[in-house]
Amino acid sequence: MIAIKRFSSRDADFRPRLDALLAFESAQDEAVDLAVADILAEVKARGDDAVIEYTRRFDRLNVQSMADLELARDELQKALGGLPSEQHEALEVAARRVRSYHERQILQSWQYEEEDADARGTLLGQKVTPLDRVGLYVPGGKASYPSSVLMNAIPAKVAGVRELIMVVPTPGGERNPLVLAAAALAGIDRVFCIGGAQAVGALAYGTRCVPAVDKIVGPGNAYVAAAKRRVFGVVGIDMVAGPSEILVICDGNTDPDWVAMDLFSQAEHDELAQSIMLCPDAAYIECVAQSIEKLLPTMPRKDVIRASLENRGALIQVSDLDEACTIANRIAPEHLELSMANADDWVAKIHHAGAIFIGPYASESLGDYCAGPNHVLPTSGSARFSSPLGVYDFQKRTSLIRVSQAGAKTLGRIASTLARGEGLPAHARSAEYRVESE
Amino acid sequence: MIAIKRFSSRDADFRPRLDALLAFESAQDEAVDLAVADILAEVKARGDDAVIEYTRRFDRLNVQSMADLELARDELQKALGGLPSEQHEALEVAARRVRSYHERQILQSWQYEEEDADARGTLLGQKVTPLDRVGLYVPGGKASYPSSVLMNAIPAKVAGVRELIMVVPTPGGERNPLVLAAAALAGIDRVFCIGGAQAVGALAYGTRCVPAVDKIVGPGNAYVAAAKRRVFGVVGIDMVAGPSEILVICDGNTDPDWVAMDLFSQAEHDELAQSIMLCPDAAYIECVAQSIEKLLPTMPRKDVIRASLENRGALIQVSDLDEACTIANRIAPEHLELSMANADDWVAKIHHAGAIFIGPYASESLGDYCAGPNHVLPTSGSARFSSPLGVYDFQKRTSLIRVSQAGAKTLGRIASTLARGEGLPAHARSAEYRVESE
Repeated sequence: MIAIKRFSSRDADFRPRLDALLAFESAQDEAVDLAVADILAEVKARGDDAVIEYTRRFDRLNVQSMADLELARDELQKALGGLPSEQHEALEVAARRVRSYHERQILQSWQYEEEDADARGTLLGQKVTPLDRVGLYVPGGKASYPSSVLMNAIPAKVAGVRELIMVVPTPGGERNPLVLAAAALAGIDRVFCIGGAQAVGALAYGTRCVPAVDKIVGPGNAYVAAAKRRVFGVVGIDMVAGPSEILVICDGNTDPDWVAMDLFSQAEHDELAQSIMLCPDAAYIECVAQSIEKLLPTMPRKDVIRASLENRGALIQVSDLDEACTIANRIAPEHLELSMANADDWVAKIHHAGAIFIGPYASESLGDYCAGPNHVLPTSGSARFSSPLGVYDFQKRTSLIRVSQAGAKTLGRIASTLARGEGLPAHARSAEYRVESE
Repeated sequence: MIAIKRFSSRDADFRPRLDALLAFESAQDEAVDLAVADILAEVKARGDDAVIEYTRRFDRLNVQSMADLELARDELQKALGGLPSEQHEALEVAARRVRSYHERQILQSWQYEEEDADARGTLLGQKVTPLDRVGLYVPGGKASYPSSVLMNAIPAKVAGVRELIMVVPTPGGERNPLVLAAAALAGIDRVFCIGGAQAVGALAYGTRCVPAVDKIVGPGNAYVAAAKRRVFGVVGIDMVAGPSEILVICDGNTDPDWVAMDLFSQAEHDELAQSIMLCPDAAYIECVAQSIEKLLPTMPRKDVIRASLENRGALIQVSDLDEACTIANRIAPEHLELSMANADDWVAKIHHAGAIFIGPYASESLGDYCAGPNHVLPTSGSARFSSPLGVYDFQKRTSLIRVSQAGAKTLGRIASTLARGEGLPAHARSAEYRVESE
């Protein structure tokens, strides 16, 4: 028997139960943070030498120089060429679909001239440019996912980032050919076999051999997350992701095995992953519970799935689908499946979610790999205020302000009045010079 | 004599001198951070009671309840009505121009159906929604700027944020009528006279009287900055701003008094503010230096300006304007003035800047108050990877993925292959169910 929580929105203690279910604070380990501070300081001060030392120690690699740690581009191509054709083709289709979706996200520059007679000739706008150089962190070992390489690298390339540098630790010299193949497909420019806080430091500060980047993206362990937090400001970083989550809203008409497996697909990631179903139909909830019991023993990762479902999973009965949407907005889930009839009609009621999977055929796993949208999504309720990773994360804006002589006379008077109100007389004088000009 | 640094790009040690000039690390005070952690924990645990206690202590206010700390909307309107007509009008024109510019930043949702025969009926898209509720921190006392209220609040309102809550400390009960007037104009929904880490905590966690928000924006002192860093994740935050900066590229034809005053207008903010000029003409640089000497004694904030120029200012001779643009991209300044003939033609060479002021009439002060674009801009070189505050900071995206039965068969095979390659069998099974469906 799996002890997955079951409760109802009609329970007197529903609100506190739901809050308790969702509560998650990522513990920040003081010892990890101090170790990371040391590593970053060493890399900043001693560059390649420090990175090589840490790599020898942590990854047990007998290397003498940074050159030994850089992979040539033809090694990536070789990895791609060596894949079984089915995998090769799947990766290519996925890359193509992801690229095609992300191309629609490109932001364009715009500008306009003032029509106002008082400010004629004044031009305002917003210039959009790509980041120059981006670092992509890819974890080594088991949690090393080729799909994650595609999802992080392709938006950067679509944005026009000139140089994309991947770092991936290879403990004991072990390389993941699928990851290297994905790097080839995604157009990664350079790959260094380094990892941990030392790799983050090398990318942030630059060393003789590793060029400094403008932003670092990609998942990593606690050391990598702590290092990214510390170098933020020197470089940009993406969000620090929490455990993965799925919320399934079901009207009770989807094959319960499908829903059970969708819940599993999140749960198999991690014992802290969260899988929740909302449904108005008590009998159907029972069916899903039975499917879970039936299918769990068939899953290779059943121990992780069980732990995850028992720790953080729930099957919740709701009054109706409207209430389910209200609760979904409270949860602001990373992944939301609308597994119901006329699912399209319900999308408008969802205000907060990383990605919405519309209808019973749209399983979350399709989005993880190949539907097109990014699989890097806001977790832990942060969909209330943030977005999926996208091309826009690799572009930035510059405001454009051209002021004509006429415009400067009009605007200068306003600026002068407000600057004096704020007690900033140099601001006022600077504007007034333009007002007074012949 | 003002000891502003003067050097040339031809100096043998130019690169290290420039690096040293730009080096700035915001010290994070351990004691401040610990005090803030305590305050946040108290506010989280005890809500309004803790906020009231801290406000009594830090702001010396003899208040009994949170109701005593909330300002009624008609107090804002009264502040607006009480302004001298010139200020009232200037604020209104500024608000109108800022709103009109920001309306062009609104992101729109989009979606498209797959044309691919294999995936027909599959729909992909991106749904854009505003944040529900935003908190705006406004500093009390001297650094309390009505223009900052407009620049932070208007983009949120244009984005469609439903509720905008301002917090502003009123130490000793002192209120700034210009700030309250700006709040009225900007459409702030509620105002609480609280500040410091306790105000940030109240907004992030919510109390009985202060509703929890989804994002906190606005400038503040070291306590506020530390508190924002700590609540990040629970809520979104804007960037933590460093000292203000201006870079003027001048061809040597602008009135040197104008350039000197533009450098002052940045320097008067703060002793750590940075004002730099790049110019190919040695004689003109001498003229600007003389203007600085001449004008400084006339400035009310001359001590701050002198300290800023001597600490962090520089007049740099460059070989030509092309090189000036290259150096500007290295600096990635918050504000860049292109004070030269045919300034428009040089914009394309600038890849990294918060805002570009094009031509000698476009003084930075016009952008600070009323040109239209936002005055909250990336500092300390972060224009390499980030953007001005904008409407897009108050909107977020949700990916839309609708998959037809036909589409699920095609996509499911690809997802299954890749999921098995990554060792995630529940992901694979979840996709395969859809492939196998009749």
